[in-house]
Amino acid sequence: MNYRIITYIIGWVLNFEAVFMAPAAVVALIYRERAGVSLLITMALCLLCGVLLIKGGIKNKAMYAREGFVAVALCWIVLSVFGALPFVISGSIPSYIDALFEVVSGFTTTGSSILAEVEPLPRCLLFWRSFTHWIGGMGVLVFVMAILPLTGGSSMYLMKAESPGPSVGKLVPKVKSTAMLLYKMYLGLSVLQLIFLLLGGMPLFDSLTTMFGTAGTGGFGIKNDSIGGYSVYLQGVVTVFMILFGVNFNIYYLLLKRRFSEASKSAEVRTYFIIILASVILITINISGMFSSVFDALHHAAFQVGSIITTTGFATTDFDVWPSFSKTILVLLMFVGACAGSTGGGIKVSRIVILFKSVLKELDFIVHPRNIRKLKMDGRVVEHAVIRSVNVFLISYLFIFAGSVLLISLDNFDFTTNFTAVAATINNIGPGLAVVGPTQNFGSFSDFSKIVLTFDMLVGRLELFPLLILFSRRTWSK
Amino acid sequence: MNYRIITYIIGWVLNFEAVFMAPAAVVALIYRERAGVSLLITMALCLLCGVLLIKGGIKNKAMYAREGFVAVALCWIVLSVFGALPFVISGSIPSYIDALFEVVSGFTTTGSSILAEVEPLPRCLLFWRSFTHWIGGMGVLVFVMAILPLTGGSSMYLMKAESPGPSVGKLVPKVKSTAMLLYKMYLGLSVLQLIFLLLGGMPLFDSLTTMFGTAGTGGFGIKNDSIGGYSVYLQGVVTVFMILFGVNFNIYYLLLKRRFSEASKSAEVRTYFIIILASVILITINISGMFSSVFDALHHAAFQVGSIITTTGFATTDFDVWPSFSKTILVLLMFVGACAGSTGGGIKVSRIVILFKSVLKELDFIVHPRNIRKLKMDGRVVEHAVIRSVNVFLISYLFIFAGSVLLISLDNFDFTTNFTAVAATINNIGPGLAVVGPTQNFGSFSDFSKIVLTFDMLVGRLELFPLLILFSRRTWSK
Repeated sequence: MNYRIITYIIGWVLNFEAVFMAPAAVVALIYRERAGVSLLITMALCLLCGVLLIKGGIKNKAMYAREGFVAVALCWIVLSVFGALPFVISGSIPSYIDALFEVVSGFTTTGSSILAEVEPLPRCLLFWRSFTHWIGGMGVLVFVMAILPLTGGSSMYLMKAESPGPSVGKLVPKVKSTAMLLYKMYLGLSVLQLIFLLLGGMPLFDSLTTMFGTAGTGGFGIKNDSIGGYSVYLQGVVTVFMILFGVNFNIYYLLLKRRFSEASKSAEVRTYFIIILASVILITINISGMFSSVFDALHHAAFQVGSIITTTGFATTDFDVWPSFSKTILVLLMFVGACAGSTGGGIKVSRIVILFKSVLKELDFIVHPRNIRKLKMDGRVVEHAVIRSVNVFLISYLFIFAGSVLLISLDNFDFTTNFTAVAATINNIGPGLAVVGPTQNFGSFSDFSKIVLTFDMLVGRLELFPLLILFSRRTWSK
Repeated sequence: MNYRIITYIIGWVLNFEAVFMAPAAVVALIYRERAGVSLLITMALCLLCGVLLIKGGIKNKAMYAREGFVAVALCWIVLSVFGALPFVISGSIPSYIDALFEVVSGFTTTGSSILAEVEPLPRCLLFWRSFTHWIGGMGVLVFVMAILPLTGGSSMYLMKAESPGPSVGKLVPKVKSTAMLLYKMYLGLSVLQLIFLLLGGMPLFDSLTTMFGTAGTGGFGIKNDSIGGYSVYLQGVVTVFMILFGVNFNIYYLLLKRRFSEASKSAEVRTYFIIILASVILITINISGMFSSVFDALHHAAFQVGSIITTTGFATTDFDVWPSFSKTILVLLMFVGACAGSTGGGIKVSRIVILFKSVLKELDFIVHPRNIRKLKMDGRVVEHAVIRSVNVFLISYLFIFAGSVLLISLDNFDFTTNFTAVAATINNIGPGLAVVGPTQNFGSFSDFSKIVLTFDMLVGRLELFPLLILFSRRTWSK
């Protein structure tokens, strides 16, 4: 194990975190908020540790899967440990465990909150809270890689460990250029949404934070009623952009390169839109009696479906009072999640497609044992290693899920609460049902359960393996 | 597809069903119950159809996986369709869908009931209802195979399709002898339990029906309070025998052959007992405050854990009022299920062990990509085909599970009810939580939901593939 490269990367990530906090400090300056001091203190701490860690440089840049996974897991933990400090130092969230929960929820683009009310928070901290979504959405290390030539060509492992989806494709031959390209598209789409929000008359501060929450598919709002208080137009803009940020970014690359026919053939993106369409139609029919017009029902159904499948977690209405059928659709969408290579969480549509196809293939195999066909997707054979890793992903996911539900059940909430609390955190969504419904929050859980759910958010965002590897004895053996 | 062999097997199964009903008819005679007529009518119908179907014999005995799976699926459906008739003809359960639910629950050894009260049922029908558990426990076709030389040596496919577990091992070289041996051990253990129950002063009728419910890990009782009214000794006997019937029967074979060291090395059986022990201890601690003594808490914890992990579903107390932690353990045990090659349902301990090992193997592979190790169990390498089939089992299971929860949510019950109703039926347990808790029943569901849950019971008992293959287009193509 090349320990030095890991500490070196952590050092750089801490330096970057100080830079990431600067905009929030500027917000504090503009609104003349004392809480800005807590941001400055944290920035200084980040720089101090960061500079110490990168001091002396690095000689051996050798990096394999093991180092890649461990580095990613540790970086995210360190980011969160420092990112929580402003909330505690400023006194806005006195408990460190609460602050850690909140900031992990931010970086992992979950959007679950322990706060009953967000409006009393200083604006600079609201800004930092929402900005963590934007940072976490596309990935921190992908960003660092886009800027710095950290490692000699073997940084593919970092990207593999941090990027969502069963297999990471490079858009262009070089990892660094791919990372740069991804961030450019991310930035472009973000700016586009910002413009649409501003055009709808949303104040700049609200537009920025709402955009951060949408782009990262995070879901932190700056209002107690999430997005419920904004106009139908603004809610519509958020709906559309949530769904767009849930699309595999490779598609945008293909569209930019005018490779339209290739883009339109993606089984994942097609399935994604079919699931959205079907869910919206079914829920609209199911809830139409609760709203004054079919358009109203359609509007809320589309918003909620977009919010849940992309794992954003914004709310325009309390869907916990919807009929059981609609709620069940939303719960199932929590697990489906967005496309691979998007900013969304969940199991990912591509994995669902691969899993579904493997069932059909096995049935075929039982009936015609001599007729062995390969599993194909988008016209290409899916490699055995990918299928195996998708299977193991699902299995690990279920074990972690079951274990988490059991651990938090010690708080003696009902089964629906426990089940959806874990579903909402491990899939990086935000709200669940019952005690953790869209008008509620996670503050009523014990510290122990909060730590379990914090772990679930991290393990979900990093797609299990990086964090699991941290706990594997073999990782640390020679 | 060799259609003739399928109709021929169905014919024989119907003849056997008439024979299976004879004991219940005798019960009617003893208690002079008019409902006995409904049994006689059904027996006549079974024989009529059965004789017509086997008429002309069979020439082409060729049988492959396809025929085996389809035959097993259709046999179980036909058995249930006829088995439900006595309830309807006698007027005890007027709705045919309700009667079908009840008898499928019997054959699949689920034990879920649509009856609010079972005590008003005539004794002969109570007997038939419980006896279906005993028939379904070890498998109908395994039984028919043990008696008749149905097919020329290729009957392994029938056994594969009907027997629970990821891979079916033959105890002795011949399938027929293996089937015979299994039924002998089954009968032996059943008689042993009967003796212990009679020694505790339980009336013969109660002893027989309770034994049927235990041996098949079914769970139908003949009292409204399930097993709650019997003495602590009798409840203890049921606890022990539930757990014994959940053990892989291969172990009993090894014990009979005095191959003790082999028997003690089984990873599945060890894990099974470790899970039971851990669950009993945790639940006892968790519920100790609700009972007058630790022994009482231990007694109920052991009974409930044994009842749920073996998927029997008997109850001595209303565990729906237990703390959330205990209920969550029970819900998780619903999914684990008993050992492969037992009469129990669920995912099966051996599958859980294989799944868990495949996660460890993958983590190992990420860290040491060149160090490829095979997945081993009990010292033997687990074949790739078995691992793949376990994976596909899990995936299909989740798809069916999610689909079922969605469909029955149309009845607008709460999430806990819907989730545990599907868990209780697909895992062949019996009771769930909330509306389908141990003191409740499935009668409040709509006919549509009852059909969905009936399907779940069948699909769970036959371990998915036989029923899925019925619905696969490729099965019926040339």
